[in-house]
Amino acid sequence: TIFFITPTYARPTQKADLVRLCQTLKLVDALHWIVIEDSDSITPLVTNVLDRCDLNSYSHVHERTPKSMQRKICTKVNPRQGCPHHLLGKEEALWKKPRGVMQRNRGLSVVREVAAERNIVKGVVYFGDDDNTYSLHLFDLMRTIKKAGAWTVGLSGGLMHEGPRVIDNKVVGWHVGWRPERPFPLDMAGFAINVTQVISKPSLEFSSSAARGYLESEFLKQVVASKDELEPKGFDCNCVWVWHTRTEAPDLKGEKHSPSDKSIEV
Amino acid sequence: TIFFITPTYARPTQKADLVRLCQTLKLVDALHWIVIEDSDSITPLVTNVLDRCDLNSYSHVHERTPKSMQRKICTKVNPRQGCPHHLLGKEEALWKKPRGVMQRNRGLSVVREVAAERNIVKGVVYFGDDDNTYSLHLFDLMRTIKKAGAWTVGLSGGLMHEGPRVIDNKVVGWHVGWRPERPFPLDMAGFAINVTQVISKPSLEFSSSAARGYLESEFLKQVVASKDELEPKGFDCNCVWVWHTRTEAPDLKGEKHSPSDKSIEV
Ligand SMILES: O=c1ccn([C@@H]2O[C@H](COP(=O)(O)OP(=O)(O)O)[C@@H](O)[C@H]2O)c(=O)[nH]1
Ligand SMILES: O=c1ccn([C@@H]2O[C@H](COP(=O)(O)OP(=O)(O)O)[C@@H](O)[C@H]2O)c(=O)[nH]1
Ligand SMILES: [Mn+2]
Ligand SMILES: [Mn+2]
Repeated sequence: TIFFITPTYARPTQKADLVRLCQTLKLVDALHWIVIEDSDSITPLVTNVLDRCDLNSYSHVHERTPKSMQRKICTKVNPRQGCPHHLLGKEEALWKKPRGVMQRNRGLSVVREVAAERNIVKGVVYFGDDDNTYSLHLFDLMRTIKKAGAWTVGLSGGLMHEGPRVIDNKVVGWHVGWRPERPFPLDMAGFAINVTQVISKPSLEFSSSAARGYLESEFLKQVVASKDELEPKGFDCNCVWVWHTRTEAPDLKGEKHSPSDKSIEV
Repeated sequence: TIFFITPTYARPTQKADLVRLCQTLKLVDALHWIVIEDSDSITPLVTNVLDRCDLNSYSHVHERTPKSMQRKICTKVNPRQGCPHHLLGKEEALWKKPRGVMQRNRGLSVVREVAAERNIVKGVVYFGDDDNTYSLHLFDLMRTIKKAGAWTVGLSGGLMHEGPRVIDNKVVGWHVGWRPERPFPLDMAGFAINVTQVISKPSLEFSSSAARGYLESEFLKQVVASKDELEPKGFDCNCVWVWHTRTEAPDLKGEKHSPSDKSIEV
């Protein structure tokens, strides 16, 4: 079983992103999708996407990011704190707070529950954000992971592709645009772990206090000691199998003079 | 048969967009995908996407937009010509030139060829851009179109949803953010036509000289006389089945100091 953990939050493009992700996941055998809404309760919108999509196996839960962990409104200029001049009066910069942390941890609890209920001992756990692009071949690659596997992610970290440097099927270093000295300078979409790691380590989780860019490193350190233990995947092709795409926030300026019908679910 | 016509052009997110679109189209029965590259020849990247995706039926051609129709570099400020101050020295604004016109016309020729070769007389023709989001249900809706069908598109035209206003299964007006006086103020993703229209009208095509926002109207006027003839689809739900999403251009600033390996296809 592939446990595919997806945090998601309300925004104009949410339904579109979830619909196309679900349609991709329909094509994958033996996959259990875990959708964790960043909200106080599960919403009709996400419920409708899941009903309509007709996936074989999924869990739908919610876990609200506490106010203290949400981004704040910039009240004074301090670029190092994520408040450059142009954000004054707006939300602090994206990198100021980790996104989806509480939700992924809730997802890990769901993995433990579902694995226990269904006696699942074989499988992998992957953190798949709702707006990335996944090639079907990625799922084949990750099924063979023994402990922790890693691969290249397209359009990530300020680069066309970002990931491990591999020689003779060993991770020997990293192609990254930023802080190569991190223990595991990988994007969330660039690794997966065997489900036994999650089951046997009940306290394995993401730390909401990880320094910027260290979320993945702090997590993987609990699974593997160093890059020597990482299993490189997908390096048999000169290509990537997953892309850190982002969906543009739509221009909604027409809403001022021609407001849309709120009863229509978009 | 649904003929799904997709213009596409080279950019960092092209492969990601085509991979996820192809994975959606794999789930649709009796569909023929027509991919028209805006390039001087077909490219290995798009060829690889199509090979790997393993769709049942598709055509892969190219049609380069002539230089005269491409956007120009702004040499002086003139906002009405698509050159506001911040674009000085850059490409003129997106709306300055229609996008994908030559490619869609080439797609219509391919429809005529394929229909003739395979004796296809039943079906619909739809213009599906490479970065939109399509729910599988949209394909069920369009199969019953007799002449021209229309529906609501999410995240389009500066609104949450944009499309026909429908009473008693008749189009009575429009919910649009802009120029409601256009004959058919519809987005490209908001209509489809019966294939017999394309076969019986060999000169049916998009006009590259249509005024801004009139591309769809000028086209549909060749098929239906007025909105009374349009067949509304999908209004049985308070929801939309297609979204005009756009994929963000990625930040590639790390490429300056850590250039990526160009031999890796992203
Ligand atoms: O307040 C938030 C922001 C993001 N997310 C989810 O966390 C993941 C990562 O967020 P995003 O895609 O915005 O981050 P980025 O693309 O910048 O890495 C996505 O699945 C989001 O839906 C969330 O649950 N709550
Ligand atoms: O120079 C271009 C620009 C766009 N397109 C294609 O035309 C369609 C519409 O373009 P785009 O999605 O950029 O337009 P928008 O989202 O702004 O309507 C897409 O399938 C693009 O891949 C193209 O073939 N050549
Ligand atoms: Mn994202
Ligand atoms: Mn588009």
